[in-house]
Amino acid sequence: MNILVLNCGSSSLKFQIIDTDLEKIEKGTDRELAKGLIERIGSEALITYKVEGKPPLKLTSPLRDHKAALNHIIKWLTSGEAQIPGIETLEDIHAIGHRTVHGGEEFKRSVRIDNEVIAKMEDNIELAPLHNPANLKGIYAAREVFGPSVPQVGVFDTAFHSTMPETAYLYPIPYQYYRRYKIRKYGFHGTSHRYIGYRYRMLTGKSREETNIITLHLGNGASACAIKNGKSIDTSMGFTPLEGLMMGTRCGDIDATIIDFLAHKEGASLDEIFNMLNKRSGLLGISGLTNDMRDLEVEIDEHKDRRAQLAIDMFCGKITKYIGAYMAAMNGADAICFSAGIGENAPEIRAKVCETLGFLGIQIDKKANNKMIRGKEGLISTPDSKIQVFVIPTNEELVLARDTCRVVQNVPMP
Amino acid sequence: MNILVLNCGSSSLKFQIIDTDLEKIEKGTDRELAKGLIERIGSEALITYKVEGKPPLKLTSPLRDHKAALNHIIKWLTSGEAQIPGIETLEDIHAIGHRTVHGGEEFKRSVRIDNEVIAKMEDNIELAPLHNPANLKGIYAAREVFGPSVPQVGVFDTAFHSTMPETAYLYPIPYQYYRRYKIRKYGFHGTSHRYIGYRYRMLTGKSREETNIITLHLGNGASACAIKNGKSIDTSMGFTPLEGLMMGTRCGDIDATIIDFLAHKEGASLDEIFNMLNKRSGLLGISGLTNDMRDLEVEIDEHKDRRAQLAIDMFCGKITKYIGAYMAAMNGADAICFSAGIGENAPEIRAKVCETLGFLGIQIDKKANNKMIRGKEGLISTPDSKIQVFVIPTNEELVLARDTCRVVQNVPMP
Repeated sequence: MNILVLNCGSSSLKFQIIDTDLEKIEKGTDRELAKGLIERIGSEALITYKVEGKPPLKLTSPLRDHKAALNHIIKWLTSGEAQIPGIETLEDIHAIGHRTVHGGEEFKRSVRIDNEVIAKMEDNIELAPLHNPANLKGIYAAREVFGPSVPQVGVFDTAFHSTMPETAYLYPIPYQYYRRYKIRKYGFHGTSHRYIGYRYRMLTGKSREETNIITLHLGNGASACAIKNGKSIDTSMGFTPLEGLMMGTRCGDIDATIIDFLAHKEGASLDEIFNMLNKRSGLLGISGLTNDMRDLEVEIDEHKDRRAQLAIDMFCGKITKYIGAYMAAMNGADAICFSAGIGENAPEIRAKVCETLGFLGIQIDKKANNKMIRGKEGLISTPDSKIQVFVIPTNEELVLARDTCRVVQNVPMP
Repeated sequence: MNILVLNCGSSSLKFQIIDTDLEKIEKGTDRELAKGLIERIGSEALITYKVEGKPPLKLTSPLRDHKAALNHIIKWLTSGEAQIPGIETLEDIHAIGHRTVHGGEEFKRSVRIDNEVIAKMEDNIELAPLHNPANLKGIYAAREVFGPSVPQVGVFDTAFHSTMPETAYLYPIPYQYYRRYKIRKYGFHGTSHRYIGYRYRMLTGKSREETNIITLHLGNGASACAIKNGKSIDTSMGFTPLEGLMMGTRCGDIDATIIDFLAHKEGASLDEIFNMLNKRSGLLGISGLTNDMRDLEVEIDEHKDRRAQLAIDMFCGKITKYIGAYMAAMNGADAICFSAGIGENAPEIRAKVCETLGFLGIQIDKKANNKMIRGKEGLISTPDSKIQVFVIPTNEELVLARDTCRVVQNVPMP
């Protein structure tokens, strides 16, 4: 099956085409055929298309909306330009998998998108005012372009965390707010944490039941997850993706009273304050320079920038504390898995995060750690480390494609 | 020396009279002579006086302000009513120690209160709008009543935490907010955490340098502290006492976006929201019943109340995670010390907090744990527990008296 995987932002659209079926999933032989990114939808859009084994194609085109963007992709796919074996007409796309951010309490697994699902997603807009409307744009557009006969599947970022116990997902605020508005921890990056857990099982031969690990998705957004017996029992992002670890531009955990203080002190509106907490905080806020870890490392290497170093030290310190917290919540774990942009490519960050974890018997193999970059997967702890430490490149698109295949084929989710 | 120790709230005044001097501090023979509590200052005040070894005296009296309350205490002390050996006239009170909540960045240790100190405390009012004005009321009143010749000393709740590194005390928000408004983690309960650390040294014979412990002050307000080489390197309360552990009525850590959501959804003002987060959250918010741990336990025993149990489970779970987080930040610790109302009197809470800490080699001695209540001090872990667990009743007043004595005698703070 050729699955079109879509990840729609408010003015962007990321896609992959992945060839998969149940046998390929089993054998791990499913593969990416093509991918692309369209940005600045609504004006002169920037388009990048890439077919496996060929150089990328970059172009611009005025694209009014997500529907126009999808039509552009289809034209590229079917006009003979892309030349992807097995894809010649619209009918060669067999199903569409959407990355959908917020499933609320309704969606505990991936589902086929029908009118009822769309209605529930629309209900959840107030829980994810930035993400869900963008995801829905993609769904509406795909319905129009592909028609009702091509199945569409929603894969929710929150679903993997639906196994959290209520002691982990409730906030210590009046219980009525949970009843009335469903204010609770949902967690995000679930598709990624789930994939990392799956790869851990593949690498170690452990069963799902035996999977007791802490997964770290460290990209521009960052979250930690405690996986016990294969299930998420806690995660650092919460009601929204603002909570938890320090991120590229998001603050993560803070004393909530800071909001009250700034509102009174500066007369700032809540919109201004939350814009600051989401877009001007984190690595960017502390360094005053950038939210990009690579650029921070250049600043340190070349200019010994004090605040760049401070930002990195704080970033690592928070991760270390979350590892300890989840170890305590789970009564220990067998492994820690680093993933996503920073987790996959910054050996010095991984080393620093583990620096004060010697008391747990964790020992990093410096050589292995330094080598594990640019998509490499494997162990970075020493053979006698009591807890294994892995680098596992994430692949959310693959999970999207596989879940889409499973839903379409009516087989149970793993 | 007879030290009057004062802890002033906005309409309350708690006091103790403690007989101490440098020799008594050294030998630990300093002792409480009397204590009392005056509530509802400003109307018909409720007064309780208690002299060591005698039954308490309860009375009411219209007291307009803190000065009137202080005068009432002095009349009781000097009119022959209290009959405390060695205290007959106003001159028998040799110094006054004030519990002062927020020292900002200025006060890293206890100081003699002069006009300059008062001015700095007034400057810090915006950092502690509830506590500092009340503390200042007590200081102004004591100046008027005792005159300038009786030394007054300020013992700051934040001082012990002034050793935190900036990676622990900065928030991941734009750095300018620290520069401009001193928004940072200050931490509270410092006097208590410091005392617990002191008692740990007395119990184990360790030096300050060898003191690597996690202290848990669990009262209606609650906080954890990571003490490394005798110094606070992290603590759970932050810019204000709202952050950190789940408390009696305070929420502790939450996703800050909840504030934005409630403001938009309910049209609630920030004052209303922060009143809810400070006064109607925590154990009270989840149980919907009470903020009193003893009452929650009765509800569970007698009515199997589900939400009372949930509140307790959440309360314990957060403490467990902070223990893990601080273990990770410190590269392990030698002991965990429970203190304050809940920490000193709730064996089942202590047991539950440690339930998932077996991976650290922690083993609780059930018998010892159950016996360690009502002011008893000692070990509750088994002899072969890798990390010791203690119950250490706190005594902030004693620290206040001793610091006051040291400042007056011009000897360095320990």
